[in-house]
Amino acid sequence: MAQALAGQGQVKAVGVVHAETSTGVLSPLHEIAQVVHHYDALLIVDAVTSLGGVELAMDAWEVDLCYGASQKCLGAPLGLAPISVGPRAMAAITQRTRPVQSLYLDLATVAEYWSARRQYHHTAPILMLYALHEALRLVLEEGVPQRWRRHAHLAAGLRAGLEALDLELFADPTARLDPLTTIVVPAQVDAAQVQRQLYQEYNIEIGGGLGELQGKIWRIGLMGHSCQISNVLLVLAALEQCLAQQGYPVARGAGVAAAQQVFAASALPL
Amino acid sequence: MAQALAGQGQVKAVGVVHAETSTGVLSPLHEIAQVVHHYDALLIVDAVTSLGGVELAMDAWEVDLCYGASQKCLGAPLGLAPISVGPRAMAAITQRTRPVQSLYLDLATVAEYWSARRQYHHTAPILMLYALHEALRLVLEEGVPQRWRRHAHLAAGLRAGLEALDLELFADPTARLDPLTTIVVPAQVDAAQVQRQLYQEYNIEIGGGLGELQGKIWRIGLMGHSCQISNVLLVLAALEQCLAQQGYPVARGAGVAAAQQVFAASALPL
Repeated sequence: MAQALAGQGQVKAVGVVHAETSTGVLSPLHEIAQVVHHYDALLIVDAVTSLGGVELAMDAWEVDLCYGASQKCLGAPLGLAPISVGPRAMAAITQRTRPVQSLYLDLATVAEYWSARRQYHHTAPILMLYALHEALRLVLEEGVPQRWRRHAHLAAGLRAGLEALDLELFADPTARLDPLTTIVVPAQVDAAQVQRQLYQEYNIEIGGGLGELQGKIWRIGLMGHSCQISNVLLVLAALEQCLAQQGYPVARGAGVAAAQQVFAASALPL
Repeated sequence: MAQALAGQGQVKAVGVVHAETSTGVLSPLHEIAQVVHHYDALLIVDAVTSLGGVELAMDAWEVDLCYGASQKCLGAPLGLAPISVGPRAMAAITQRTRPVQSLYLDLATVAEYWSARRQYHHTAPILMLYALHEALRLVLEEGVPQRWRRHAHLAAGLRAGLEALDLELFADPTARLDPLTTIVVPAQVDAAQVQRQLYQEYNIEIGGGLGELQGKIWRIGLMGHSCQISNVLLVLAALEQCLAQQGYPVARGAGVAAAQQVFAASALPL
C-alpha cells in the first residue's frame, strides 16, 4: 500500500472493507489508517459486515468515514446504511468545489438536515428508522463488547467443528473474520450440490465462492440474530451428512463434538 | 419550451414534474412529450405525487422514463421509488459510453438484476417490497381508474368548500392537481399561525408555501389513504374556525355545506 500511495498528494482517499465477506478476512484498520494518513489521504471504511459483530473503533483507529448496514450484525431489516463522517472527511466534503453528481449521496446537504436549519434533503424512510432503533436497543441491551464476544465465541466453535470434519479453513489464521467463515471445498466434493442439499433438506443457506473462488470455497455467516449455538451445531451436523453422501471421509459426530467442547470451555453467557 | 429546445441535438433529456406539489399544478405530459420528441430528446417524468392518484399513461403519452414514490397516492410506507424505463430511455442507458458515477442509480446494472443472469446489484429492502406489494394489492382491489376518480371527486369537494369560505385557489383552473390543493393566504391572515393551530388543535398538518411562496399559500394534500371525505370535512370545519379567530369573515358552515353538496351530487361509491 505504501508503494501504491507513493505519489503523495495524488491519492485523496483509500477505501477498505473492514470485514471482507468474499474471503472471510478482517482488515487491520488501525495499521492501514497510519499508512493512509502518512500520505495525507482519507480512510474510508466499509463496515457493512463488521458493525455490531466485531470491534470497530472509528475514532481510536482514525477512520475518516465509515458506513455499515442494517441487516447484518445489527440484526435490523434490510434497507439502511448507517454512516459516520469524521472531522477530516467532513472538511473535505464541505470544502469541495466541484458539485456532487449524486443528490442521493450529497452528504453536505444531508448534513444540513441535521443542522439547526433542518434543511430538507429527502423524505426519510420512517418505518425503517423505527426498526433500526429497536435493533440498536437490542444491541445495547446485550452490550456491544458482549456482542463482539458472542460472535467470536461462536465462530471459534464453528471453526473447531469444521477442522474436526477435516475441512481446511480458507482465511489466514491471523486475519480470520468471526461473522463469516470461509472453507476450502475438498477436491472431490461438488460445492453447489452441498449448498443445494443444505438448503433443501435443512433450510440452511451458506454462500459459495465469488469470482475466481466460485466452486472453490464455502462461506458460512454467523451474524447478529443468526449467530446462535443452535445454528452452529445444525450446520455442522448437516454438513457432515452432505459430505459423507458425496463420499468424503468424515469422522461422524466429530464436528458437533468439537464445537460443543469450545462452547463448554467458556463461561460466556449466551 | 420549443425555444429552449431550439438548439436541436444539444438537449438530450427534459425532466418534468407531473404533479407539482409546490404549486398544485398538473403538467400536460402528452403535449410536452410531443415537443420533446420533436427535438429528439427523452422525456423524464417525476410522478412522485401523481402515481396512483391521477391518470398516468406512460406508454400512451410517450413518457420515456418515469419514477414515483411509495408513500403518496399509493399509500405504502416511505422508502421506495418505483421506476419504469421505456425502450428509448433504456437504449440511451445501455448505449452510453461514459460510466455512470453513481452505483446506486446505475440502471444498466440494476436491469441485469432482472435479467436471466440475475446479476447482483444491491441487497433489496425486502420488508419495504412486501409493504409495497400489499399497497398495490389494495390499489388493484379499489381499481386504478376508480382511485383516480376518488381523488378527483374529493378534491372537487375540497375546492368547493374552500371557495365557499371565500378563499382563492392558487392554481389555474385548467391545471389544478387533485392530490394537492393550493390556496392563497388572505392578506390579513397569518399563514403559519393557522397551520400551527390546525396541527395543535385538530391534528391536521397542511403545508405552507415554499421559496418565494412562503407565507403566501397553503397546500392541502389528499393522497391515497388520507383522501377520505371525513378528512375533507374536518379540514374545512377546522380552517373555518382558525380563519374566524383571526378576524377573517367566513360564512360559518358554508365550507362543509358546499363540500357535502358536491359529494351528494355524485354516485361515486366511496
